[in-house]
Amino acid sequence: MTSPRYANMHILGLGSTVPTPAEGITADVFVVSSFEELAASSDKAEGKIVVFNAPFTTYGDSISYRTKGAVEAAKAGAVASLTRSVTPFSIDTPHTGWLEYEDDVTKIPSACITIEDSTLLQRLQDRGEKITLHLFMGAENHENGTVTSNTIIEIEGSQNPEEVVVVSGHLDSWDVGVGAMDDGGGVFISWMGAKAIKNLGLNPRRTFRAVLFSAEEQGIWGGDAYFAAHGEEKENFQLVMESDMGTFTPYGIDFSGTDEATCMMKEIVSLTYLLGTTETGSPADTSDLGGFTSVGVPTGSLRADTDTYFWYHHSNGDHIEVYDSTNLDKVAALWTSVAYVAADISFRLPQQNFTILE
Amino acid sequence: MTSPRYANMHILGLGSTVPTPAEGITADVFVVSSFEELAASSDKAEGKIVVFNAPFTTYGDSISYRTKGAVEAAKAGAVASLTRSVTPFSIDTPHTGWLEYEDDVTKIPSACITIEDSTLLQRLQDRGEKITLHLFMGAENHENGTVTSNTIIEIEGSQNPEEVVVVSGHLDSWDVGVGAMDDGGGVFISWMGAKAIKNLGLNPRRTFRAVLFSAEEQGIWGGDAYFAAHGEEKENFQLVMESDMGTFTPYGIDFSGTDEATCMMKEIVSLTYLLGTTETGSPADTSDLGGFTSVGVPTGSLRADTDTYFWYHHSNGDHIEVYDSTNLDKVAALWTSVAYVAADISFRLPQQNFTILE
Repeated sequence: MTSPRYANMHILGLGSTVPTPAEGITADVFVVSSFEELAASSDKAEGKIVVFNAPFTTYGDSISYRTKGAVEAAKAGAVASLTRSVTPFSIDTPHTGWLEYEDDVTKIPSACITIEDSTLLQRLQDRGEKITLHLFMGAENHENGTVTSNTIIEIEGSQNPEEVVVVSGHLDSWDVGVGAMDDGGGVFISWMGAKAIKNLGLNPRRTFRAVLFSAEEQGIWGGDAYFAAHGEEKENFQLVMESDMGTFTPYGIDFSGTDEATCMMKEIVSLTYLLGTTETGSPADTSDLGGFTSVGVPTGSLRADTDTYFWYHHSNGDHIEVYDSTNLDKVAALWTSVAYVAADISFRLPQQNFTILE
Repeated sequence: MTSPRYANMHILGLGSTVPTPAEGITADVFVVSSFEELAASSDKAEGKIVVFNAPFTTYGDSISYRTKGAVEAAKAGAVASLTRSVTPFSIDTPHTGWLEYEDDVTKIPSACITIEDSTLLQRLQDRGEKITLHLFMGAENHENGTVTSNTIIEIEGSQNPEEVVVVSGHLDSWDVGVGAMDDGGGVFISWMGAKAIKNLGLNPRRTFRAVLFSAEEQGIWGGDAYFAAHGEEKENFQLVMESDMGTFTPYGIDFSGTDEATCMMKEIVSLTYLLGTTETGSPADTSDLGGFTSVGVPTGSLRADTDTYFWYHHSNGDHIEVYDSTNLDKVAALWTSVAYVAADISFRLPQQNFTILE
């Protein structure tokens, strides 16, 4: 900030943003708290840096300012856009994530700022101050044809090896932090599932498969590739599960499936009563497994405390410190138990007769 | 970090640190979790960057690694020292603060790092990795003779104007954040005390004085100057109070004084029962008022929730978002009520017959 006073602001460029010119952008600020406010005063955005200061409600609602902010600001003539980080809590923490440009709208640089700075800019504007920022972003976008792989760990079924239970997480993360939470936790419990079953000398009826997806953050590329390769075998998938909302205090399993399958799943989850993790809910919350859900395969996800998940999500705070080892062990035990029983049980979980959503 | 892998680490130079050379310092790392561990393995520190990875216990205990780390590391031959930030909780948050050099020990650059990076370095060392850091710090220390002032707001007493009740906080803060919590809160409630008494048209028997100290963070310069100017009038000080541990949910008042004065103070604090802030404790926690405490003047401080105080202390997270306005109002009401009653009550709070500590 160069006016009304000098201050450094911590930013993180959003995923796929274009850079500023080498000399940066110096422009006045127009703060809005919603797309509606921008639409109602779009004449004030011309030549400005538009700041979206939308308070966190839910991730699903709030990310629209991160994904569509640059396009809406550019349509109103803005030269750059800044978005309040998608989190309910901050200690000067910027949170990045993907943004979506549109082909026929000027691509303007876009970054996230902290709650502290976003609300400060709002207060300065509300009291009539002229706010000027100097913004420099050296973003680079590469299309270098790198190939990455999903990593698959498999224990072949003893009776029906062609039938599969999948547990999964995704291996990739943002460059900020180390991705311990998003999604190291999901990777850990899925890997632990295979390790525990192996170490216990168990050999379930169906194949137990841990899939550690690649390139989820870039747009579910690993999940889409896996579904492209295996979607046609959908009848063979007994249950697919993914954990991608943190692995904090576990409560049980969220599930998407027919009423009959849901009833069976409740019985399976109830077997974990010694862990105190017998809750079930709906729908399952998965990203890489969206293809399987859309064609009616029973889908599960971890039901756990997510109160602090967005404190760290896509920020430099996503380190191993967000977890405690006891909860990680409990989550792994729940995850493994449910998957193992689903893999070894004598009956099939019925599938829904969906068609693929195009 | 340049080995075993490349990673940026957020640091904050400690107050009064010397800079690194212009080309920075590239050196291997030696992590210790205590001064005892450093002493037992001091031969491993020669030519290294020593990292103090001491978990947070209490502020009083933990700051020794911030204040004395550079000296102890230099004595063992280190070329720089890094200290785990003094906080129980972090979202990639470095916390600065003062460090103390000794005249006859080489002054080495010293910075704080985050809990996340400190524990990462510990784990890398524990597994036998060779850790190399490149450290650059452009610190400058100026002695330019700037004069700052304490700010004093006074409502003259109607019967005994020479007798005084002081409420206080300190105006200065670190350059990180904006100092909303340390110590904008203490300043706010002390200023509000004078404003409320004035607005209510009250005129207490004794003088009500709000002192907004300057230069506390640099070493209590404002507090020391105030005591140097007024310590000789100590008999006239009925009660001095300072708030410098945050202004979160209020509980009551902590107090240092004779048994008789403590008994009177409990009665005064009990008058705030409608606010639910009738707790008392001991000792009072003050910094700028240490001189007055040492000569036996009754001293008070805010007793409030401090659970999250060190989450933000001396970090970029010290912004207005740490507070909610309802609690600030409640704290101001408690602070003002206690100070007003002490200023208007018919009797004196007895003083202790201390001598000045040299």
